[in-house]
Amino acid sequence: MRHTISVLVENEFGVLSRVAGLFSGRGFNIESLSVAETTDPTVSRITLVTRGEDQVLEQIEKQLNKLVAVIQVTDFADTEHVERELVLIKVTAEDRTRAEVINIVDLFRGRIIDVSRTSYVVEVTGTEDKIKALIELLQPIGILEIVRTGKVAMFRGARTLTVDGKGKGRAA
Amino acid sequence: MRHTISVLVENEFGVLSRVAGLFSGRGFNIESLSVAETTDPTVSRITLVTRGEDQVLEQIEKQLNKLVAVIQVTDFADTEHVERELVLIKVTAEDRTRAEVINIVDLFRGRIIDVSRTSYVVEVTGTEDKIKALIELLQPIGILEIVRTGKVAMFRGARTLTVDGKGKGRAA
Repeated sequence: MRHTISVLVENEFGVLSRVAGLFSGRGFNIESLSVAETTDPTVSRITLVTRGEDQVLEQIEKQLNKLVAVIQVTDFADTEHVERELVLIKVTAEDRTRAEVINIVDLFRGRIIDVSRTSYVVEVTGTEDKIKALIELLQPIGILEIVRTGKVAMFRGARTLTVDGKGKGRAA
Repeated sequence: MRHTISVLVENEFGVLSRVAGLFSGRGFNIESLSVAETTDPTVSRITLVTRGEDQVLEQIEKQLNKLVAVIQVTDFADTEHVERELVLIKVTAEDRTRAEVINIVDLFRGRIIDVSRTSYVVEVTGTEDKIKALIELLQPIGILEIVRTGKVAMFRGARTLTVDGKGKGRAA
């Protein structure tokens, strides 16, 4: 099963490497990962997507919780949450396809953030399915390059990682 | 100086941990990092933001290039490029502040992607400055939680990592 996991960590050297290493050491591939500061500059929040046996994942989560720099581990599986990802897509822009690109981008509520004589850079956010559909529509026009952030996730409603977490209880 | 760096890597176990470890091993903190698949499912693209002495960073980039799984390393410093980040912000929503939140979100061309009786989840993309300004405006209303993806970057115009890169020449 696929899991989206948030890990709140102290902002220290080497934490990211250790967290990622716990997954790869047990043969779990990380499909995507993003990490950035929270409102507390001493705390970073890692969001990662991985897939594998639930039992092994439970062991990894226990080991994560044992790391001194780890404040809290949250698995969003079976919870009410929102997930979003940002993708930048560079597409070829020729006279005959320009209007089509603009229409597709509008339909996906995206934005064109760079324009050259031969290319557009398109910015879109959404769920994985939405981004997949957009890529499929742009592919025949000509995708030159894609960069995506990987998913971030948050509980729906007022629930935050802090209040309902099982961890050491630092603010997100 | 601050650097935004893209690393194209073979999608293998442990690569992320090794890449992150090269930075932390030399005392470079990673401010943000994101990694996800490219259009080629065997290749992932890491974007990371770090700060430190340029000379040491050059050494790290050389070491990165020596890793078998690393296809290409690109430093966006002094290049024409676009950078974007996605942030989800959970804010308190009370009767007296709801309209204000909606106005601010409109102003920043953001979206409200979850609504509860007491909270909104706001989605916004932008440069670091834009996101910083948004957070400052929402702070007095009441920020419950923030999660951000970290930056992704792309050259302006038709130039891609592949064509102008110094690496082993795999498609992005």
